[in-house]
Amino acid sequence: MKTPEEILKIMMNEDSFSQWMGIEIQAIELGSCTLKAEINSTMLNGFRIAHGGISYSLADSALAFASNSRGVQCVSIETSISHVKKVSEGDCLSAEATEIHRGKTTGIYNVLVKNQHNQIVALFKGTVWITETKW
Amino acid sequence: MKTPEEILKIMMNEDSFSQWMGIEIQAIELGSCTLKAEINSTMLNGFRIAHGGISYSLADSALAFASNSRGVQCVSIETSISHVKKVSEGDCLSAEATEIHRGKTTGIYNVLVKNQHNQIVALFKGTVWITETKW
Amino acid sequence: MKTPEEILKIMMNEDSFSQWMGIEIQAIELGSCTLKAEINSTMLNGFRIAHGGISYSLADSALAFASNSRGVQCVSIETSISHVKKVSEGDCLSAEATEIHRGKTTGIYNVLVKNQHNQIVALFKGTVWITETKW
Amino acid sequence: MKTPEEILKIMMNEDSFSQWMGIEIQAIELGSCTLKAEINSTMLNGFRIAHGGISYSLADSALAFASNSRGVQCVSIETSISHVKKVSEGDCLSAEATEIHRGKTTGIYNVLVKNQHNQIVALFKGTVWITETKW
Repeated sequence: MKTPEEILKIMMNEDSFSQWMGIEIQAIELGSCTLKAEINSTMLNGFRIAHGGISYSLADSALAFASNSRGVQCVSIETSISHVKKVSEGDCLSAEATEIHRGKTTGIYNVLVKNQHNQIVALFKGTVWITETKW
Repeated sequence: MKTPEEILKIMMNEDSFSQWMGIEIQAIELGSCTLKAEINSTMLNGFRIAHGGISYSLADSALAFASNSRGVQCVSIETSISHVKKVSEGDCLSAEATEIHRGKTTGIYNVLVKNQHNQIVALFKGTVWITETKW
Repeated sequence: MKTPEEILKIMMNEDSFSQWMGIEIQAIELGSCTLKAEINSTMLNGFRIAHGGISYSLADSALAFASNSRGVQCVSIETSISHVKKVSEGDCLSAEATEIHRGKTTGIYNVLVKNQHNQIVALFKGTVWITETKW
Repeated sequence: MKTPEEILKIMMNEDSFSQWMGIEIQAIELGSCTLKAEINSTMLNGFRIAHGGISYSLADSALAFASNSRGVQCVSIETSISHVKKVSEGDCLSAEATEIHRGKTTGIYNVLVKNQHNQIVALFKGTVWITETKW
């Protein structure tokens, strides 16, 4: 069976959008993952703060890497995010995915997105469907 | 007071990320908005399908434009999305935001994301906070 | 195969809590269901308006009946509700569940909860897991 | 200003539905709250397990008590719950509400619902609107 690191490497190599976002891996373990990315000017919205889709995408990548780390492929069923603090150009975000529940068919993960001052900027929750396909 | 078209133009001009995604405006009215975008290879994830953040971002932009169309600035409080069908490179997505509730302080919008075959690929719901700042 | 009416009858007969709430069936069809219930004084919360759990329970029953109507047992994975208008003692609520998506393993339903003045009081969304157990 | 205990007492005294559920207070502090309730036969659904509305209602009461504990009235904007384990008659549930974010206008709380074996049965997240009305 592949290790969390091996699976992550395969996924990240193919993941063009995570690469475009400049995502760096901080940590990967069975059921958890921490990512990092810096906000550049292309990532801003009509209010000139980070587009909500950027924090979401960072958290969604963390969800994917954390949930797939156990050796079987997982796909997202339902995700939600609350944006609680503005994110500006130059901010450096981290996203830490934690496994809250791992059943037979579904898994639930919380992802906490923080800025460089360790302030929470977004709270993400994701439910994944655990397939029978091994990595 | 500015019209929905005027507000949208101001927002879209500043919205670097929506521009990067190649978002086109299909329709804008008081409380509703329809956007379109094509999936390119940079938008793919580790499974070589569209990253969940892409459908989310398209829907989130539709939410922003629809909720701000009434002349006062609105910011997202909580959003959720269910990805129900895979999105592939070359697919052309539309996102239609509809106002379900507009109270004094909060508004709720559904966004339906479909592909070029008119199949639903994602269901998005967003709650916004209605500020007192006029456009 | 059992009809939606037959399945509903079996479920409702066993459903002590829906009975306690005084839930009445207004309509049942493949993938949809409309229920009704009146708010009594036992259903109120610390603000002397209907407890959020009452609208939720009514909507959740509608989700259960609508999703199980297709002849296989379905269980809730994730549900969300936005309470947008106060509900008072004596109000008569209706909950209409509509099927938005029915895939192989999951289904998604919207439930609109309205009062006797046809005003929306809550918006509910539910995702169910479609089991392989037939009714 | 009233203490968390005083506010809780006022709320609980009026809260007929929480009383009907037999809710007991385990702990109350600024921004957090733990409740307990036992599942009886009236709380069951069509599968003869606890109705989803029961776990929801317990968690929603915990959200209300935790968010109101800071001396100003708070009302629920959006809540979501994932039911991850069946709850049976005779089970004793606890619901622990924790404050994740407290801004100027909104607060976010996680509520973990566990059974008597300390197993998670439901994960609840609630966003409240912080009004300007003092207790």
